[in-house]
Amino acid sequence: MTPVPTLDTLILFGATGDLSRRYLIPSVAHLVRDRLLPPNFRMIAVGRQPMDDDAFRDWLRQQLPEQVARNRGPFEQLLAQTRYVSVDLSDAAAMAAALAPFADRPAASYLAIPPDLFVPTCEGLEAAGLLKAPSRIVLEKPIGHDLSSAREINARLRAFADEDRIFRIDHYLGKAPVQNLLALRFGNTLLEAVWHNRWIASVDILVAETAGVDGREGYYAKYGALRDMVQNHMLQLLALIAMEPPATLDAESLREEKRKVLRALRPMRAEDVARDSVRGRYGDGVVDGRAVPGFKHDSDAETFVALRAQIDNWRWAGVPFRLVTGKRLAQRTTEVLVSFKPVSHWIFDRPVAGATVPNRLLMRLQPEENIELSLMGSLAAPEWGGMELQPMSLDLSMPATTQRRIAYERLILDALHGNQALFVTGEEVEAAWAWIDSISEAWIACGQAAMPYPAGSWGPADAGDFLPVTVPASNRPVTA
Amino acid sequence: MTPVPTLDTLILFGATGDLSRRYLIPSVAHLVRDRLLPPNFRMIAVGRQPMDDDAFRDWLRQQLPEQVARNRGPFEQLLAQTRYVSVDLSDAAAMAAALAPFADRPAASYLAIPPDLFVPTCEGLEAAGLLKAPSRIVLEKPIGHDLSSAREINARLRAFADEDRIFRIDHYLGKAPVQNLLALRFGNTLLEAVWHNRWIASVDILVAETAGVDGREGYYAKYGALRDMVQNHMLQLLALIAMEPPATLDAESLREEKRKVLRALRPMRAEDVARDSVRGRYGDGVVDGRAVPGFKHDSDAETFVALRAQIDNWRWAGVPFRLVTGKRLAQRTTEVLVSFKPVSHWIFDRPVAGATVPNRLLMRLQPEENIELSLMGSLAAPEWGGMELQPMSLDLSMPATTQRRIAYERLILDALHGNQALFVTGEEVEAAWAWIDSISEAWIACGQAAMPYPAGSWGPADAGDFLPVTVPASNRPVTA
Repeated sequence: MTPVPTLDTLILFGATGDLSRRYLIPSVAHLVRDRLLPPNFRMIAVGRQPMDDDAFRDWLRQQLPEQVARNRGPFEQLLAQTRYVSVDLSDAAAMAAALAPFADRPAASYLAIPPDLFVPTCEGLEAAGLLKAPSRIVLEKPIGHDLSSAREINARLRAFADEDRIFRIDHYLGKAPVQNLLALRFGNTLLEAVWHNRWIASVDILVAETAGVDGREGYYAKYGALRDMVQNHMLQLLALIAMEPPATLDAESLREEKRKVLRALRPMRAEDVARDSVRGRYGDGVVDGRAVPGFKHDSDAETFVALRAQIDNWRWAGVPFRLVTGKRLAQRTTEVLVSFKPVSHWIFDRPVAGATVPNRLLMRLQPEENIELSLMGSLAAPEWGGMELQPMSLDLSMPATTQRRIAYERLILDALHGNQALFVTGEEVEAAWAWIDSISEAWIACGQAAMPYPAGSWGPADAGDFLPVTVPASNRPVTA
Repeated sequence: MTPVPTLDTLILFGATGDLSRRYLIPSVAHLVRDRLLPPNFRMIAVGRQPMDDDAFRDWLRQQLPEQVARNRGPFEQLLAQTRYVSVDLSDAAAMAAALAPFADRPAASYLAIPPDLFVPTCEGLEAAGLLKAPSRIVLEKPIGHDLSSAREINARLRAFADEDRIFRIDHYLGKAPVQNLLALRFGNTLLEAVWHNRWIASVDILVAETAGVDGREGYYAKYGALRDMVQNHMLQLLALIAMEPPATLDAESLREEKRKVLRALRPMRAEDVARDSVRGRYGDGVVDGRAVPGFKHDSDAETFVALRAQIDNWRWAGVPFRLVTGKRLAQRTTEVLVSFKPVSHWIFDRPVAGATVPNRLLMRLQPEENIELSLMGSLAAPEWGGMELQPMSLDLSMPATTQRRIAYERLILDALHGNQALFVTGEEVEAAWAWIDSISEAWIACGQAAMPYPAGSWGPADAGDFLPVTVPASNRPVTA
């Protein structure tokens, strides 16, 4: 294997956009603070607005008052290492000219821009000589809106760079609990032993937002919750939970195992739709004590989806993976719940069906990041004989002394170092779309409409059976 | 099944002895305090010294100043419910006369007396009419000193009462962590799944005392550590760890499974002695900073024993159970350590053989009572890529709000209620002796002498390989 070089130039397209301002630039500033960036690191910020370097730096200081207040030294150091370039991304010749001064070293180009600009931007980069190996392209979802559009985008990207220089970000993969989950799963005999259908009853993946579609109506009308959330973040979580143990943590092994899982997802058939899926769309309601309007748009887009997925392989046969996501739900929660089967036989005072809780592993990503293991322990019986059990919750998070990082910090560093393990391959993207397409086609085939639910609830009535047990019974929707 | 009646009379033989004063009477006082005893409960204290009831009560108040200070109300209530009887236990007719006033109700007779008085005392109880069903006999180790003497004692006891009215105490079974271990093992899928030789590498049972033989030279010269500690407490712990899951927690199921384990212990052969056992005897040394004399006696008795036991059944084939006990060791510790095998394959930065620790479950009985589970968790890598793991310790003890009880409290209550689950059957005692006898015979056959070790050390040089990993490397004896 050729050694993968570390790059010291980050070209940030969309530098004045929301993602850059809120996450990407603060992440880079943290990396400067912690001296984790390569020597001679420089950032080329690219935006549409005409500004010179100093005007961009001033603008950033205004935009990021927290960085100025809490992280001033490193932030100023980053600004000193930052140049600003204003250019029209649809004009390849102009880009080539504007970026020529930075073409002396290979770069990682981060495309924090709308997907319809991916190809024109790559053309400009290529014209500037900034896509020659080992330069890299870093980009975010969405990669297309169905299998055929994703295939087309991937094919076009591969015309600019080989797969090993294309870094598709899913920022969920940069989150600490996700990496901790890998550590727990592959570093512990107790989990190695039980991680399959003999011992696991079900897996729940819940991404519940209280936010609405606000301001993204057009995008949402085209995508809906299924394409916006399930295709990427939720299927990536599913793949990490369900993959076979990779032979190494190298990008190749890890991503091949994820792809195999995605390909083993059982396609949705029209006759399964009623049993295995719920579509919903929020109406007027109350969220966090505030009245909010429903999502009104003449498309049929859903803002809520609940799915029961099956993975057709030896490890997972018969284990339901329930995926639920929605906007304007009762609570902001992202979690993955692995529920183990009850013990084979119950010999204690209370029946299994009663107050006892089967073992479970709960990984929380929002609003807190942690991992919790629930076991049963004994309670000294208050009267003679017998033995009462009560659940215990064990916190498996790392000690608070461990640095908490924005997911993007890890991913930007990995992109500069060329470590692809936490990025998504084109094949994974396509396998995920193939499954997603089966669902939308099945919905169309049986005319499955989005059922209304009030903003601030837990979704349509039929969703009750799909919600994880961590949603309190009193809050769950029930079929009339 | 005939319902088992609750008895309200406790006849305590040896009431002025050490065990009664230190543990049994305080335990009964706690049960009074917590209103756990049956209505109309009474205690008949039997001793050799002539005293009337009030003199005994005064004596007890002097002996138990803590009870008087901290628990006065319930303690006085107990004294009011207590009668004292002075009698010569070798005189059945005298006993019958002295106990006649209390023969109106069936009783649980607790024989806290030397074993050579068991049979004469039972004769007196029988003459008094106090061994008719449902009256019960409660007694402590030692039950004999080898298989044939134990058989004889059991046969004699059974002439007075059926097995279901004989309650052989091993007070280790009354300890909270032992019951918690049952709860963990049988209440959790995660442990059900791994509790066998596919996933468990070894089990260590360590009972280390800093105390010496002091004052019990004669008894010790006859028994030695093997018969004093291994035959009862340590083999009971081994049986609980290793037993097949019982179909119920009833005395019959539970004890049958323990007996099966004890019978499956592979007898020691002369050719295994050098590899699988160490005998030791402490010499002069320093314990807790104080110079102490060695155990000097012209018998060959050992004060230290280390054994590698094998259980010849399907669940445990190939898993060593290391049993180590000794007097005058470096530290007072009683613990059971279940060490799981390493994960099948290691994909993280540090090699399995390095700083990583295979999963383990550690049950501590002395000096603290708790249960700890060690897992590996991830540490966010300080530089790019990779993933470092570090061990985490999870405390599986019950919350501190749970009442801590003296082991005898539970056992006395169970004896009054007739619940035999935590008592030892005659068959278990005999199976344990059969294995112990194989060891002493093998020792004799190959002239295995007790190796000297200095008081305050961790035993003879050869014992190093038998000690659990919880004993720090710097402290372990090493073969020269």
